[in-house]
Amino acid sequence: MSEVYAARRDRLREACAAAGSAAALVSRTANVRYLAGAAPAGAVLLLGTDTEVLLCSTSPLGRPDTASADEGLRTQVLSSGGDPAVAAADLACAWGAESLALEEHDLTVARHRAMRSVAPKLLLVDLGGSVERLRFVKDEEEISCLRIAAEIADQALGELLESILVGRTERHLALELERRLVDHGAEGPAFPTSVATGPNAGHPTHAPTDRRVEEGDFLTVCMGAAYRGYRCEIGRTFVIGTSPADWQVEMYDMVFAAQRAGREALAPGTPCREVDRAAREVLGSAGFTQGLMPLTGHGVGLEIDEDPRLAPSAMGKLDTCVPVTVEPGVHLPGRGGVRIDDTLVVRPEADGGPELLTITTKELLAL
Amino acid sequence: MSEVYAARRDRLREACAAAGSAAALVSRTANVRYLAGAAPAGAVLLLGTDTEVLLCSTSPLGRPDTASADEGLRTQVLSSGGDPAVAAADLACAWGAESLALEEHDLTVARHRAMRSVAPKLLLVDLGGSVERLRFVKDEEEISCLRIAAEIADQALGELLESILVGRTERHLALELERRLVDHGAEGPAFPTSVATGPNAGHPTHAPTDRRVEEGDFLTVCMGAAYRGYRCEIGRTFVIGTSPADWQVEMYDMVFAAQRAGREALAPGTPCREVDRAAREVLGSAGFTQGLMPLTGHGVGLEIDEDPRLAPSAMGKLDTCVPVTVEPGVHLPGRGGVRIDDTLVVRPEADGGPELLTITTKELLAL
Repeated sequence: MSEVYAARRDRLREACAAAGSAAALVSRTANVRYLAGAAPAGAVLLLGTDTEVLLCSTSPLGRPDTASADEGLRTQVLSSGGDPAVAAADLACAWGAESLALEEHDLTVARHRAMRSVAPKLLLVDLGGSVERLRFVKDEEEISCLRIAAEIADQALGELLESILVGRTERHLALELERRLVDHGAEGPAFPTSVATGPNAGHPTHAPTDRRVEEGDFLTVCMGAAYRGYRCEIGRTFVIGTSPADWQVEMYDMVFAAQRAGREALAPGTPCREVDRAAREVLGSAGFTQGLMPLTGHGVGLEIDEDPRLAPSAMGKLDTCVPVTVEPGVHLPGRGGVRIDDTLVVRPEADGGPELLTITTKELLAL
Repeated sequence: MSEVYAARRDRLREACAAAGSAAALVSRTANVRYLAGAAPAGAVLLLGTDTEVLLCSTSPLGRPDTASADEGLRTQVLSSGGDPAVAAADLACAWGAESLALEEHDLTVARHRAMRSVAPKLLLVDLGGSVERLRFVKDEEEISCLRIAAEIADQALGELLESILVGRTERHLALELERRLVDHGAEGPAFPTSVATGPNAGHPTHAPTDRRVEEGDFLTVCMGAAYRGYRCEIGRTFVIGTSPADWQVEMYDMVFAAQRAGREALAPGTPCREVDRAAREVLGSAGFTQGLMPLTGHGVGLEIDEDPRLAPSAMGKLDTCVPVTVEPGVHLPGRGGVRIDDTLVVRPEADGGPELLTITTKELLAL
């Protein structure tokens, strides 16, 4: 893996050189991890033209955990307990850098000020989303981590479906799912697991409550696993009891059709907003125009919510090897709703089209 | 509760006025929650001399959850999906403010720049740690939340001690503890639960692994519950099997004595570093001077790691109604160690001295 990280850092160097800066400071956690293989709390990565170092600080409770960092990368632990970003500014000057590109969307004003005061002659410029742009298209190693994360989530969800659900609370079901994720080898949940029953079902950001599962409920689960830092997402809606009501079948079929339309629109070169439009049109033509989510899906990777965004005003296009979620849903206040969510990898038609990572059935199961 | 939040906001207004700024923008999550009762993702609080508003943005997945926000406070949801901090700068100008004090330790350079560009005439100054200073001394309502959080943690830990531990992994024990916290009414763990066995025991930041509990192990648990946003911390070390080895008893007694010395040093007006010194001296006189943690304890509240710090170079003094942890420990690489951690509230001698919130026994239990 060491060569992979070194190659990523070289690509960042090229991007910086093209923008006119010889040194770069990466501070955003997921970006540090992408380039260094590990991101101990507070660590920053300083890159010069031909030198580089991962700077960490001794945390209040002990030494940073650099065990999984790229072995080819020099690591320096500040014993003073100072801010690694400030130490990096100092070091960049010592390296003879005249300017330093940094992540203005991550560094606070206070840290930026402290850097300026230790290195008043160093020109601080904006690195912007350069590392995020490198992270947009995944390599096969990254995709295989996402694939394993999705398998783990499928297993945990599958086991839950075999158990008795009526009478159990949303909160307990969510905790059980998270335990099962870890049982199957996840580092942890990719994001807080959402379990929503009855009137809560289909709500996109529902935090589990003490409401108990009842006969006739819709039950929406949205969850994901983190594996080697990579995060996937799966969402399914079930009905509790022997036979769903007509309105439930109708609503489910419509969201299923919208989600399928979104999935089928995934292709290299497709504008992101087209995917959103494909799903949204199905919902709209069935009369659902109010209370829809602002987006239909988003990228996943080292963070659960990355570029691209699949939304009406999204700019940009999809590309091969970009993993995204497709997750339309509807929610009627007081009544409940449906959400169906998959993680897929964009692949060209010649390779069989989009690769579905989360394979749990999307039939409407009555549990 | 509404009056409590309003009174807190008035105290911040006084602090701002004294520093020469009429308007203030609070963006740090815990600070927004302290002043507004809730902090939907990304929400910021804008305070003018006689007006105030909680600004939230529609999240990618739906409307912000403002359910628990102070009812006496006006809430404004940006439909545009813009940055609430930028909208606040605009609004401060509309209110006629000439300067705006903001949290430079929280806002990123990019957000600060965007604020400057929508409001070029508004002087942006630093609010610094003004809200953190208000949060330092807790009121009885806050302390009662901490007391409940501590009770929950004690219950979860007590139940674990009644179960069979040998053969189970650190990871499973940690998950079970977190499930029990929620069973007993916690919103969730206050921080990731640490379970450390054998050579890992006593390590202050150990992340649970697949190592199984064995006869003769030290077992260190460090955990806490969050209740209404307030976070407590408890740490205990046990020995597995019928009788601890001599070195284990010796090490345990020494850490216990250090922790007691720290607890007994807690009093209003005591310099923070004196508490650290009291605990550290016991460890030092037993020959433990290497590999100690940089701090002996820290404040808790809406965040698990707040002011004050109990460390050798800490400035400042304790005060009545300041909750702190006292958590000395030792860890010998390859062998293991001991850590004992309580949450206490500083109280004057006349009120019975420090109030111990985490009451699980600190006898060396053989499980």
